[in-house]
Amino acid sequence: MTDFNDWVRVIQARTEAALTHCLPEAHIVPTRLHQAMRYAVLGGGKRVRALLVHAAGDLCAGDPVALDAAACAVELIHAYSLVHDDLPCMDDDDLRRGKPSCHRQFDEATALLAGDALQSLAFEVLSQPGLLPDADRQLSMLHMLAQAAGSRGMAGGQAIDLESIGHELTQTELEQMHIHKTGALIRAAALLGAHCGREDAEVVRAVDGYARNIGLAFQVVDDILDGESDSSTLGKTAGKDAAQNKPTYVTILGLARARQLALELHDNALAALRPLGARAQRLEQLAAFVLQRRF
Amino acid sequence: MTDFNDWVRVIQARTEAALTHCLPEAHIVPTRLHQAMRYAVLGGGKRVRALLVHAAGDLCAGDPVALDAAACAVELIHAYSLVHDDLPCMDDDDLRRGKPSCHRQFDEATALLAGDALQSLAFEVLSQPGLLPDADRQLSMLHMLAQAAGSRGMAGGQAIDLESIGHELTQTELEQMHIHKTGALIRAAALLGAHCGREDAEVVRAVDGYARNIGLAFQVVDDILDGESDSSTLGKTAGKDAAQNKPTYVTILGLARARQLALELHDNALAALRPLGARAQRLEQLAAFVLQRRF
Repeated sequence: MTDFNDWVRVIQARTEAALTHCLPEAHIVPTRLHQAMRYAVLGGGKRVRALLVHAAGDLCAGDPVALDAAACAVELIHAYSLVHDDLPCMDDDDLRRGKPSCHRQFDEATALLAGDALQSLAFEVLSQPGLLPDADRQLSMLHMLAQAAGSRGMAGGQAIDLESIGHELTQTELEQMHIHKTGALIRAAALLGAHCGREDAEVVRAVDGYARNIGLAFQVVDDILDGESDSSTLGKTAGKDAAQNKPTYVTILGLARARQLALELHDNALAALRPLGARAQRLEQLAAFVLQRRF
Repeated sequence: MTDFNDWVRVIQARTEAALTHCLPEAHIVPTRLHQAMRYAVLGGGKRVRALLVHAAGDLCAGDPVALDAAACAVELIHAYSLVHDDLPCMDDDDLRRGKPSCHRQFDEATALLAGDALQSLAFEVLSQPGLLPDADRQLSMLHMLAQAAGSRGMAGGQAIDLESIGHELTQTELEQMHIHKTGALIRAAALLGAHCGREDAEVVRAVDGYARNIGLAFQVVDDILDGESDSSTLGKTAGKDAAQNKPTYVTILGLARARQLALELHDNALAALRPLGARAQRLEQLAAFVLQRRF
């Protein structure tokens, strides 16, 4: 098996290439919109969701072309959510991945439309005729992605997040928010990967349990990073959650218990993979990668 | 054949019922988001796009359940576009269908997320497993809707519209903008309807020609209405385009030639239907309905 770090670089590069290919070129009218879409998607990010698609897909001998399309679709949804999240009426953030956020680089209206069009493009990419030999399977993948993105998934999590500003949340309420806001798309990424290959109920069950825990761990780590980093390390405005009086795992649990929780979720994710044995090594490595982003 | 006005009322009512059913109930968490989504979609609008789905679908003996789903999907995309279009960074409009626009009734962030989630819901509704017996057909409908909504369709048209503010446009440039902004989704509505039934290349070709002309006629009529109505008749802020120095068919052609153009497009739409003979009566009636909304 390829070294994990090499594998990460390969998947990141092929995802970048696939995204570059599926995004309309910058000279196509409307040029400013297409420039903004490319700006928001290309040249940054760890592509954790694409890595999950591929790691889960490899378990089921997923078709490479279908895996690339699924990875693009999930990354496009993620990118659109960041563009809208940074808008003045949401988090009002000037910095993203170390660069001006999309509405700072272009303008608010263009950023709004770029986000909208990136969401459409995600469904366009995943609905390409003949992507999988089994059209019913492809339909159920589209349905899964739509649910994960919508009001009972990611967009719903954002809404819960908005409502929580200035309120005290319990750990359970915070967890509910993140299960929607970050967890739904992370889970969809892993399940989409698994659906690109052989139908295998045991794999799907294991991947699902793994992804639910990793999704939450991912957010706990994010909160820890937000609490302890400066903006230049983080590539986005640091300390923002605390400044906006947003509840985080760090504000609710304190730094030490938040770190402990991240480790527990990591262990739970590995436990979910146990029935798969050595086949799940890539997903295990990816769990460590998610956890160790900075600490 | 049922009287046209009765048919319109029946389709409007069944579309309202189908939308009410597919939207998450207002008491489901996040409640404010779900309330905003329902507010933006239900209880208003002529449902022209749903009428097009059904009129085209009836030509091909389309399955009623699939037609309702396609009608919902198109109306959800349309509703999301109106919510985002009314936001302060876009048209900054306080009034929509005679009520406060979504961000005025709720708040900007909620309206942004409601629009986002309505787009996801459109794809969720149209990707329901088993909606059509032919999953490949259903996939191509999803692909068609995604293209019509995206940067080379509706969202692209909005971007061209933004870029055009304060610029002189030729009639051809204005037409290009509207082919994207309004035309793409109107065309998708008619084609989705046709795809819900028997595969029939002649019907698809005729419906496509019809829909391209009707889509443009729809916009010309909109510009005429915007130029001559007051806000209470229109249900949205009147005279806005002229005040914002946006080019319209009325500002470019004058009122008399704009009316003439609407009639020509109507005739072209009917000409496209001619090969279908009497089968196309509902689409013919619908063309008159679009044209005669107010004048």
